Amino acid sequence: MNLEQISAATAFDGVQGVYRHRSAATGTDMTFSVFVPAHAEGERLPVVWYLSGLTCTHANVTEKGEYRRACAEHRLIFVAPDTSPRGEGVPDDPAGAYDFGLGAGFYVDATQEPWSAYYRMWTYVTEELPALVGAFFPADMARQSILGHSMGGHGALTIGLAHPDRFRAVSAFAPIVAPSQVPWGEKALGNYLGPDRMLWRSHDAVALIEDGARLPALLVDQGEADQFLEQELRPDLLRKACDAAGIDLMLNLRPGYDHSYYFVSTFMADHLAWHAARLG
Amino acid sequence: MNLEQISAATAFDGVQGVYRHRSAATGTDMTFSVFVPAHAEGERLPVVWYLSGLTCTHANVTEKGEYRRACAEHRLIFVAPDTSPRGEGVPDDPAGAYDFGLGAGFYVDATQEPWSAYYRMWTYVTEELPALVGAFFPADMARQSILGHSMGGHGALTIGLAHPDRFRAVSAFAPIVAPSQVPWGEKALGNYLGPDRMLWRSHDAVALIEDGARLPALLVDQGEADQFLEQELRPDLLRKACDAAGIDLMLNLRPGYDHSYYFVSTFMADHLAWHAARLG
Repeated sequence: MNLEQISAATAFDGVQGVYRHRSAATGTDMTFSVFVPAHAEGERLPVVWYLSGLTCTHANVTEKGEYRRACAEHRLIFVAPDTSPRGEGVPDDPAGAYDFGLGAGFYVDATQEPWSAYYRMWTYVTEELPALVGAFFPADMARQSILGHSMGGHGALTIGLAHPDRFRAVSAFAPIVAPSQVPWGEKALGNYLGPDRMLWRSHDAVALIEDGARLPALLVDQGEADQFLEQELRPDLLRKACDAAGIDLMLNLRPGYDHSYYFVSTFMADHLAWHAARLG
Repeated sequence: MNLEQISAATAFDGVQGVYRHRSAATGTDMTFSVFVPAHAEGERLPVVWYLSGLTCTHANVTEKGEYRRACAEHRLIFVAPDTSPRGEGVPDDPAGAYDFGLGAGFYVDATQEPWSAYYRMWTYVTEELPALVGAFFPADMARQSILGHSMGGHGALTIGLAHPDRFRAVSAFAPIVAPSQVPWGEKALGNYLGPDRMLWRSHDAVALIEDGARLPALLVDQGEADQFLEQELRPDLLRKACDAAGIDLMLNLRPGYDHSYYFVSTFMADHLAWHAARLG
């Protein structure tokens, strides 16, 4: 394992860094950001994973997410990966659409050509990057949680539901909750995983819950002025699935809020406090 | 007066907007951002002016400044103007340097050709934009304060010192305090105002204080790892001038912090609390 520091800046008494490494999972260089709060020599802090949405890199939340004050207060390491492989040879949506290919990895391991050679974001985010973070940062890997926004909310929910013993808290901002049932998800899962919809179910939060996955609680914030609410996000489907499964879903519908980081940053501190309470 | 809304998003229960208007002062379209916290119908809130640094537009602080939580808490309107005129015909640094011309208006009214036709940021920020803000937003213009970063810290200090009855609080992050004595300032003031250095003194905070300008108090935060500290910023000169003048300067030197918005955002809430206490 090798890690290159691209930048580091003091912020809220901690260090906001950006790092690059060669990924075995994706076969590309990958860039991610990590905020490490002030801490004692030798101390290890809980790790919060933040997965970003369509078109984003690590930089969007790092610049606009307003998480550092709360992470410093609660003493949480905050890790923000990229949303897809990038670079020479990585195939993109043939039409250059924003909702597939570069910036749109959907946190799956693609099985279909030509995507399968690079688009292995599930393995990257659940295995390779955690090993790197555990090795290079003062992280207590026994205390992890995960959250995300939009496509990254989909990633947080599916990864959280698939690893109930790893993540002590799972939450999302305006997540795609049922990709099998909405245009963004049907396009992405169809291309990355192929036409057999049964194979999509392990990458669909609502389907995972229907199939028996359980978490004690979920926190979701959703703007009611979100332009993607009715066609792509469908929190009603998550509500129904959680009610049927007995999962305690705290779904906050926020009047006036859109899909942007103005929305995410407003409720970021609430989510991090909720995570901190569960991370001990 | 006419005002075009470019965007508006709900954030921290208020509205973060971006606006454009035709400026008589600069002869160009000008873009600025305003955050208006939640407030009662007919209520008018204090106004905090934020002036940005070299290369910035309104967007840098709007996206990275982390001011909305504190402005919502203290119920402050936050206005972020651009740093220069822009557009067709506006002359720029002949070599395209970042420290003069576009993005580098230095908050003066240029008297020298070809700059004098457009670079009238003093009039724009002290007269034209306040009239617009007072007319179009729920602003209590009897309660104003001003702060800024780097070149915008220079602007906040000089405009604040020149209007002691208008601004109830004046503060800065890593300001240029004595442009007449540092390379950035000598270049900008020399080009905009001409070679007579006596004419620079009303746009130099240290010179203004030496010449008798007074404020009850100033708050300045300065990163000790700031790459521009010794050559361009020189807080020691402000310390000396304030001590000689009996101005209560709270100068916080912050170990480890650089010149970036990671620094600004860390101390933004402190500055806004200090402003709020003086805005009543």
